[in-house]
Amino acid sequence: MSVSPFAPKSLPKLPPVDGVRIASCEAGIRYTGRMDLTLVAFEPQAVAAGVFTRSKTAAAPVEWCREHIAQGVARALVVNAGNANAFTGMKGRDAVGLTAKATAALVGCRQEEVFIASTGVIGEALDPEKFTDKLDDLVGRLDPAPWEDAARAIMTTDTFPKLATRTVQIDGIDVVVNGIAKGSGMIAPDMATMLAFVFTDAPLTQQAAQTMCEQGVEDTFNAITVDGDTSTNDTVMLFATGAAGARGVSEISETGDAGGVALAGAIEDVLRDLAHQVVKDGEGASKFVSITVEGAESKNAARRIAFSIANSPLIKTAFAGEDPNWGRIVMAVGKAGEAADRDKISIWFGDIRVAIDGEVDPDYVEAEAATYMKRAELDVRVDVGVGAASARVWTCDLTSEYIAINADYRS
Amino acid sequence: MSVSPFAPKSLPKLPPVDGVRIASCEAGIRYTGRMDLTLVAFEPQAVAAGVFTRSKTAAAPVEWCREHIAQGVARALVVNAGNANAFTGMKGRDAVGLTAKATAALVGCRQEEVFIASTGVIGEALDPEKFTDKLDDLVGRLDPAPWEDAARAIMTTDTFPKLATRTVQIDGIDVVVNGIAKGSGMIAPDMATMLAFVFTDAPLTQQAAQTMCEQGVEDTFNAITVDGDTSTNDTVMLFATGAAGARGVSEISETGDAGGVALAGAIEDVLRDLAHQVVKDGEGASKFVSITVEGAESKNAARRIAFSIANSPLIKTAFAGEDPNWGRIVMAVGKAGEAADRDKISIWFGDIRVAIDGEVDPDYVEAEAATYMKRAELDVRVDVGVGAASARVWTCDLTSEYIAINADYRS
Repeated sequence: MSVSPFAPKSLPKLPPVDGVRIASCEAGIRYTGRMDLTLVAFEPQAVAAGVFTRSKTAAAPVEWCREHIAQGVARALVVNAGNANAFTGMKGRDAVGLTAKATAALVGCRQEEVFIASTGVIGEALDPEKFTDKLDDLVGRLDPAPWEDAARAIMTTDTFPKLATRTVQIDGIDVVVNGIAKGSGMIAPDMATMLAFVFTDAPLTQQAAQTMCEQGVEDTFNAITVDGDTSTNDTVMLFATGAAGARGVSEISETGDAGGVALAGAIEDVLRDLAHQVVKDGEGASKFVSITVEGAESKNAARRIAFSIANSPLIKTAFAGEDPNWGRIVMAVGKAGEAADRDKISIWFGDIRVAIDGEVDPDYVEAEAATYMKRAELDVRVDVGVGAASARVWTCDLTSEYIAINADYRS
Repeated sequence: MSVSPFAPKSLPKLPPVDGVRIASCEAGIRYTGRMDLTLVAFEPQAVAAGVFTRSKTAAAPVEWCREHIAQGVARALVVNAGNANAFTGMKGRDAVGLTAKATAALVGCRQEEVFIASTGVIGEALDPEKFTDKLDDLVGRLDPAPWEDAARAIMTTDTFPKLATRTVQIDGIDVVVNGIAKGSGMIAPDMATMLAFVFTDAPLTQQAAQTMCEQGVEDTFNAITVDGDTSTNDTVMLFATGAAGARGVSEISETGDAGGVALAGAIEDVLRDLAHQVVKDGEGASKFVSITVEGAESKNAARRIAFSIANSPLIKTAFAGEDPNWGRIVMAVGKAGEAADRDKISIWFGDIRVAIDGEVDPDYVEAEAATYMKRAELDVRVDVGVGAASARVWTCDLTSEYIAINADYRS
């Protein structure tokens, strides 16, 4: 499997986040010769917030996190790759419970303060001993530095680890926001086979953390698609240790405060950065495409039209073929089911206006659009001519490599 | 482009339908060396019924048909391939008007008794003179026999012509139902880049014809998908000449009559036959897959879950790879958004029960399922464990040939 052409030349160097320590290891859950288990430990005052898949067949670890997120305290996060612990019935629930119990005993906290995420194959029983055996070692090696190890240990079909960081000043004091994510296929709103974890030392109430997490996901992880498939395990979590409070940052309980606005902006930036990396590592992706829909009746309508375009196999194959096949965009606008005035639709590829008022632009020169389509990053903009609302989503192209990756027998 | 492995060894031989005459020719609309224009003429008493795309960007000929279907009389049908006359603004409407006018003059009827359908590239102006010039010749060559020519003339990316026929006795007298269709990609409910025309000599009121057309489409053309993309031009029309009335068949005005039930059954059979042919000729298809969802809250819920499975790129690529990857089916059930009890879900590939009560079946042997997946025609059945409703849809696999067909620059 070839590495995505969008893989970064060098990975961002993430600074420590006060109150966060990490350790990763090879647990041999499915893969050999690579790390597949990560433990993140938090100082006692840390709060957790999260957004989870809306799948009706959500995995056992997702149910666990959803159940315990409201109590708000986080002391540990355990993530494994290779097995999603999804569709595993009572055995799956038991595996989660055993993991939480073992981790709580070692970290010295209550079980419900341990959050758990899994990613990988669905439907195979996860043997919790494979990693409860490793937790002792992980706890002994906890360290503020090894972010890249953690980003690598949560990968499945990802071709590069996904890291992002921002530093923001609150009360004149530097606060760090770090994030790691994994995801490559089965990517769609709401959220995908996608795990993303964001960590900050800002002092946040649980409620403020939850609001920032939900708002941050809205135009980032909920605005991307690779293949329109939504996973059983999608998880975005935000952990705030509050350690910057000791350096003089006052607690943020209102997202509208100056400090809250700055922090929420940094969190959204990190989430967007990670979300874009997920699309750029979309299985078989050779194009990164931004789709903007304007002139819609509502933001939801604009977004549904944008996703109708972003998920269309015919449009995604046309991107792969570098074909400015705007007729297929008209098709996708039409099939979205949202209000659109066929005779007022306009379409742009980058700055090239292809269609205006429901017809091909008289000045359109297809050779120019064909040249534009050769770029690695494309902007498609559509005005559907009925209102003033807009939305933007990101997708990649659909190539024969996607087929090769996903048609191969699981091995 | 290779011919579908499901292409029939020999084409069905369609008998004449009393009151229907056909002629096809090369109009050079886009293709060379093949027929691309068909005229079907009906005796004066014929009625028309139709079901059309729900696309918000429907093409000009669809708008024309929708506008005139209620008046109910049909004297002619004109179909071209190579240009969809979609997203062509006022020019598109003019082209339709000119075609209707020219045809009406030659056939000797009112313009609104001429129905028009187009299929092909979206967004390019259709020059009506290309075929109004040919209509004179077509009218002179009208004949009851050349069904295959018509089926060939309406093809676009189809790799084989699609024909079906049934004969049914009403009042002890043989009545014929013939159908032709085209469609290969951009196939999804509601209906696809798909044209289907059904012709019968049964004497039908327009209202009965409309009811039979709508009911016939429900579990046939509205239950298939190739790529989840819906076209601007989807059209299913039923034409009933009534000529069998002269042979003693009494008029059918109630679909619940014995004659009505028999005829509706034959019409649905023809539509199902054609719909299956469309899926079997799905772009790049190597597998024909029936998806049955049982135990759902309602038929609509069952159908939405079935389509969530049938449209999932991850599942369709697994079919292509002959991989019994039932975990992806769990994913698709979950993302459908309809009620499903994760811990009661059961899944079968053919007669092989893969999962039961939300877990892999303890007796499941993956090698057996892998052998089953090598078949060309597959049955997938899922019980979602919450109710008693069921639905069935049909799809094909997603292969690298689909990418090759659709990524190539339009030429």
